[in-house]
Amino acid sequence: MKKTIITISREFGSGGREIGKKLAEQLNVPFYDKELIEIAAKESGLDKELFEEEDSRTSKGFRLLGALGYSLGGPLSTITELSLNDRLFLVQSQVIEQVAKEGACVIVGRCADYVLKDYDTVLNVFIHGNMKEKKERAIHSYEVDERDIENSIHKIDKRRANYYEYYTDRKWGRAENYDISLNSSTFGIDGCVEIIKEVAVNKSL
Amino acid sequence: MKKTIITISREFGSGGREIGKKLAEQLNVPFYDKELIEIAAKESGLDKELFEEEDSRTSKGFRLLGALGYSLGGPLSTITELSLNDRLFLVQSQVIEQVAKEGACVIVGRCADYVLKDYDTVLNVFIHGNMKEKKERAIHSYEVDERDIENSIHKIDKRRANYYEYYTDRKWGRAENYDISLNSSTFGIDGCVEIIKEVAVNKSL
Repeated sequence: MKKTIITISREFGSGGREIGKKLAEQLNVPFYDKELIEIAAKESGLDKELFEEEDSRTSKGFRLLGALGYSLGGPLSTITELSLNDRLFLVQSQVIEQVAKEGACVIVGRCADYVLKDYDTVLNVFIHGNMKEKKERAIHSYEVDERDIENSIHKIDKRRANYYEYYTDRKWGRAENYDISLNSSTFGIDGCVEIIKEVAVNKSL
Repeated sequence: MKKTIITISREFGSGGREIGKKLAEQLNVPFYDKELIEIAAKESGLDKELFEEEDSRTSKGFRLLGALGYSLGGPLSTITELSLNDRLFLVQSQVIEQVAKEGACVIVGRCADYVLKDYDTVLNVFIHGNMKEKKERAIHSYEVDERDIENSIHKIDKRRANYYEYYTDRKWGRAENYDISLNSSTFGIDGCVEIIKEVAVNKSL
């Protein structure tokens, strides 16, 4: 089956976002990253609706949480309050489901692989890279301070791993979560774009 | 650079061995798995040479261990004896290096990705799959008892992970260890063979 919705998770500095952007351009489909999903959430009015609910036990957010099956470290009955972050996550998850229902797209980050886990037409991709290239990209594209750069990269990845593992029951960066994982240092940005295009269109069962 | 040596690590039941065998046939290169590496070690006489050394502190095996940089859970100076398994691993690693030096090939298992980590012409692949297909393959291809099949699959993977993590400083199944990881349930056996052939020949930098 052709995979029309492509989610990309990535190590910091691996070029995963750039790969996603190029992929969307070449496939001529919408591209969403964290910032665009936040804007979409605001525009949809979903966040307003969710944040106006005061009683979290009976809120839409709370019901959503159950419906989406998110693991928050314990049975739902023990959760008495949803944090601001949890609510944001829920709104963003709704936006991701909405854009996926609208058709083909590329989504980077925001646990989109997990949010869309029951969709047959989704291809989940993980992009990682060697430290040498990740450091170069972090310095040039993201202007991260050259001193202590390796530590900064590890910290950002640790934050991504924590976010992913808080909202899903999976370990970030394990191959088993994704249909395909690629080392961008081996294949380059354009090489990764080519491979993903090829497997999304021609190779999936 | 064209990748002529392909190592395959795999979850039990994912079809990784079959993918490796088909790949070797289609590329017309030698295929090595655990059994064939054991035979090669015997035929090479390397195992005899290693096992005849009695003083493990000064044995070839011990020096090899240092030269190959294997982590055995502590500094080398604290290891007073190499177990039979450690010696077997060293002989097999030597065989893997030998066959890699001889030219193009496909090697399944035996931490070949780690043993050959300094070779530029190596493509490291990880194959995983969904439980449904892994169960079917385990029952039909490996005649694993249908009762408690999921538990059996987990146990075998746990053994593989332990072996990998004992002899390397890496976590088995993490995408970052490999150039490409593929879900065989998404792409099928032949799909995976096609993708690996394509990326090994045309896409690597």
